[in-house]
Amino acid sequence: MKNGNVIGIDLGGTNIKAGIVNREGKILKKVSVPTNAHSGPDGVLAQISFVIHRLLEFSSGSILGVGVGLPGIVDPSTGVVKNPPNLKGWGSVPVGEILQSEFNLPVFIENDANSAAIGELIFGAGKELNDFIFVTLGTGVGGGIVVSRKLFRGSSGGAGEIGHISIDYNGPKCNCGSRGCIEAYLGNNYLVKRVKRELRKHPDSLINSLALEQGEEITPYVINLAAKRGDKFAIDFIAESGRLLGFALSSVVNLFDVHTVIIGGGVAGFGKLITQPALRALKERVLTPSKKKVKVKLAKLKNNAGIQGASALFFYNL
Amino acid sequence: MKNGNVIGIDLGGTNIKAGIVNREGKILKKVSVPTNAHSGPDGVLAQISFVIHRLLEFSSGSILGVGVGLPGIVDPSTGVVKNPPNLKGWGSVPVGEILQSEFNLPVFIENDANSAAIGELIFGAGKELNDFIFVTLGTGVGGGIVVSRKLFRGSSGGAGEIGHISIDYNGPKCNCGSRGCIEAYLGNNYLVKRVKRELRKHPDSLINSLALEQGEEITPYVINLAAKRGDKFAIDFIAESGRLLGFALSSVVNLFDVHTVIIGGGVAGFGKLITQPALRALKERVLTPSKKKVKVKLAKLKNNAGIQGASALFFYNL
Repeated sequence: MKNGNVIGIDLGGTNIKAGIVNREGKILKKVSVPTNAHSGPDGVLAQISFVIHRLLEFSSGSILGVGVGLPGIVDPSTGVVKNPPNLKGWGSVPVGEILQSEFNLPVFIENDANSAAIGELIFGAGKELNDFIFVTLGTGVGGGIVVSRKLFRGSSGGAGEIGHISIDYNGPKCNCGSRGCIEAYLGNNYLVKRVKRELRKHPDSLINSLALEQGEEITPYVINLAAKRGDKFAIDFIAESGRLLGFALSSVVNLFDVHTVIIGGGVAGFGKLITQPALRALKERVLTPSKKKVKVKLAKLKNNAGIQGASALFFYNL
Repeated sequence: MKNGNVIGIDLGGTNIKAGIVNREGKILKKVSVPTNAHSGPDGVLAQISFVIHRLLEFSSGSILGVGVGLPGIVDPSTGVVKNPPNLKGWGSVPVGEILQSEFNLPVFIENDANSAAIGELIFGAGKELNDFIFVTLGTGVGGGIVVSRKLFRGSSGGAGEIGHISIDYNGPKCNCGSRGCIEAYLGNNYLVKRVKRELRKHPDSLINSLALEQGEEITPYVINLAAKRGDKFAIDFIAESGRLLGFALSSVVNLFDVHTVIIGGGVAGFGKLITQPALRALKERVLTPSKKKVKVKLAKLKNNAGIQGASALFFYNL
């Protein structure tokens, strides 16, 4: 393989974060610009193009290619993006083709959850693993399943929707229309709603005072802060969330016969408070031959996971 | 491929059923002998050997190979069988090697749920499909997931345990130690237990009188008979069972991005009474891009599915 680095682009609804990343996953240079979602696909593509130009100027060595991660449905074989949920009015846009012809570089496009899974595979906690289940806990609960070092795509690229495993068919309504999806417990908004409801029975919890102190709403960050300061309700709440996650994951383990789980995304900041109960629930619930094999790890890529995952697409597809 | 037929062997805890099967899946000759499970691996292997000898005598054309399906953990690449649940005291037995050297024919060994899925793929309702989810409803609830015409095996061959997807983490206790597994609703014994419990509120149901009439216990057969004669409770009970199955399957569809479900096994005798509610539940619960794609079909292989599936292993592995 030729020597050189890669540009990784994390296309969000608000900002485009991008960086030059080396083949160890280290970010050498980082830029961020507004997405200008209101300006439609042409405007957003102009912002992406601007960012690539800036990074190419900064780059001292050669740039081998570009990777882009974004929410929504992507056909990675053609680079066509369909109706990204945070970018209204896009329809079908051949993002890969457009960038490839402008920069004369190989361009790889992926859904952001898949791209985060590939980031862990190439640079992170999955570097030494053949098979793992990646789950990312953020606004939504996303995922990707890696088997024999390949992302499992299913028949049309939509596989790995771990967030929409139901753990209770009579459970809380999920945005997707189903009930009891693990996202309907652990997606940020659902998580906060659950904590608020349960807080009524725990008026003395530190979560209340910390939220006031921080001059902000109750967030996963505040819940975590309270737990770190020893608040029993916060600790129990996170443990119960981990337990529910473990229940969902046990169905994934039984279906895929894959035994290591890597947890990423914001809520993964709960650390062992969430991974240990998740592991206990897994051991309790998976089929006997898997009980000794299951493991839960935290993702290695943190704040820049979006950029690193996008750049990993290049090395993955090589 | 050379012309000829294949011997398929369905190794159960009570009987060994075997047959000569042509490449269209048609059974040309069938024999059945007791398994003699009490006589240990040597005794059971002697019975298998006896059956193969008999079928070879009967065969007019050439026999190309042998397939064996049996419950439990099988490594299809080595033909080693580990602790089959209905054949106590086996440990690890290299069934494939033993038969191969005795008959000088290629021998393929598979777990029975996998072998049933491969039977549908080669001879049955999956013949024209690239991807499908196969679920078999019997004493247990088993399954197999076919992607790009290959059985998905996971990291160690244990994938596709559809019976142990939980639809309610607080649900009824399952044999496997977990709770709310779909097997804990639809496995034969669980199904009968559920029907008995609910029958108390429906003393007039035909199920009661039919069970008496048949001089037997309540079985899926009796429930089906009552439903076919218009018994509202029996029809509703089967529909509710289908609905629960649909809930479990919606998690499988969301994880695998595979849209056709093939239902086999004894309880599949409920026919449309179970497939239609399952399909409705699937459409209600899967993610939007899958709603229009989901389909539920009945397996094509019926009473001789075990023999046909075992023989299909030969054509699958060719």
